[in-house]
Amino acid sequence: MLEPATMKALSIATHRRTELLEITDQVQATVRAAGWSDGLLTVYIPHTTAGVTINEHADPDVARDLERRLDELVPWDDPRDRHGEGNTAAHLKTALVGTSATVLLAVDACSWAPGRGVFLCEFDGPRTRQVWVQHAAAG
Amino acid sequence: MLEPATMKALSIATHRRTELLEITDQVQATVRAAGWSDGLLTVYIPHTTAGVTINEHADPDVARDLERRLDELVPWDDPRDRHGEGNTAAHLKTALVGTSATVLLAVDACSWAPGRGVFLCEFDGPRTRQVWVQHAAAG
Amino acid sequence: MLEPATMKALSIATHRRTELLEITDQVQATVRAAGWSDGLLTVYIPHTTAGVTINEHADPDVARDLERRLDELVPWDDPRDRHGEGNTAAHLKTALVGTSATVLLAVDACSWAPGRGVFLCEFDGPRTRQVWVQHAAAG
Repeated sequence: MLEPATMKALSIATHRRTELLEITDQVQATVRAAGWSDGLLTVYIPHTTAGVTINEHADPDVARDLERRLDELVPWDDPRDRHGEGNTAAHLKTALVGTSATVLLAVDACSWAPGRGVFLCEFDGPRTRQVWVQHAAAG
Repeated sequence: MLEPATMKALSIATHRRTELLEITDQVQATVRAAGWSDGLLTVYIPHTTAGVTINEHADPDVARDLERRLDELVPWDDPRDRHGEGNTAAHLKTALVGTSATVLLAVDACSWAPGRGVFLCEFDGPRTRQVWVQHAAAG
Repeated sequence: MLEPATMKALSIATHRRTELLEITDQVQATVRAAGWSDGLLTVYIPHTTAGVTINEHADPDVARDLERRLDELVPWDDPRDRHGEGNTAAHLKTALVGTSATVLLAVDACSWAPGRGVFLCEFDGPRTRQVWVQHAAAG
């Protein structure tokens, strides 16, 4: 893989098999360091057993509830799964939550996020995950 | 929060706890007023208990069926939820449907949407919701 | 509908009612032919009973497992569905998986995809589907 030219990459360590881990501060620091303002900001997870979502961060119980409910909605064990690695459930949760989140940047890197956070959604951890961030200017 | 510079904001009133409310006309009017053409158009919902989806609008029964099936897939009441507001189900439905939808604009604001509509997905209404719209030119 | 100006359109034939069909090669060829590099690449499906996802392509059993699990999560037959065409399940799976996927392009069209593929998610096939691709430059 060639070096990405202008996109930014973060490396994030997760701690459990299923974990919604907030990365808002890291994303906002990246936006500020890059000098990006008005436009579309996409947070992309270059993995297939982890995704990304925007959700409430004021009460950490929201993320905990979502972890438990997602695991109930998509059980880990299913004897009909054929994928040899045994982590089909993680691939499905990733497909449902999505591997990217696009938010809108206004003049300030925080404007898109009052009360909300960006969460890396680990579905087959613990692992070290990459998070890629890119921006396209408004217009 | 600073004023957004170029993105456009809509304010939409919803009517029920779970409601897929079509906002295609408002989004297209916004696109035309802004003069946006070729490129990526992102509709972003700055909330964590409401999302956005692109789906069929020819038959309103599609939206009604989706409301009922989503409520069955993610039941409102779950005694194991810990989130104090009691609306974990709305946060999960938002994570599944997503808080943004990106469509492609061609030379005309309608080209992306024959037979399809943009739906604000209310999961904890009724409320007044914000819908933010932004564009990045093709190239 | 006017002709799209700069976006690219692919036509893809699917083979089963539910099918995750890999279209990575077609998307990458499109990116290369267009000369797009650094920026946001959105793959958009202009239908409401088919979506798109990024997932593992090394083991084809992943896609097969996801097809089966999605059909179990959202059963085709539900006597309470009112939509006359009888394909509400396909509309719901499309809402869950999403009608667009945004990935990040770096200097090379392949950089976003080592080990991962772009899958057209057919939920009411077989049909011939359109796949639209557009790019916004980084900046």
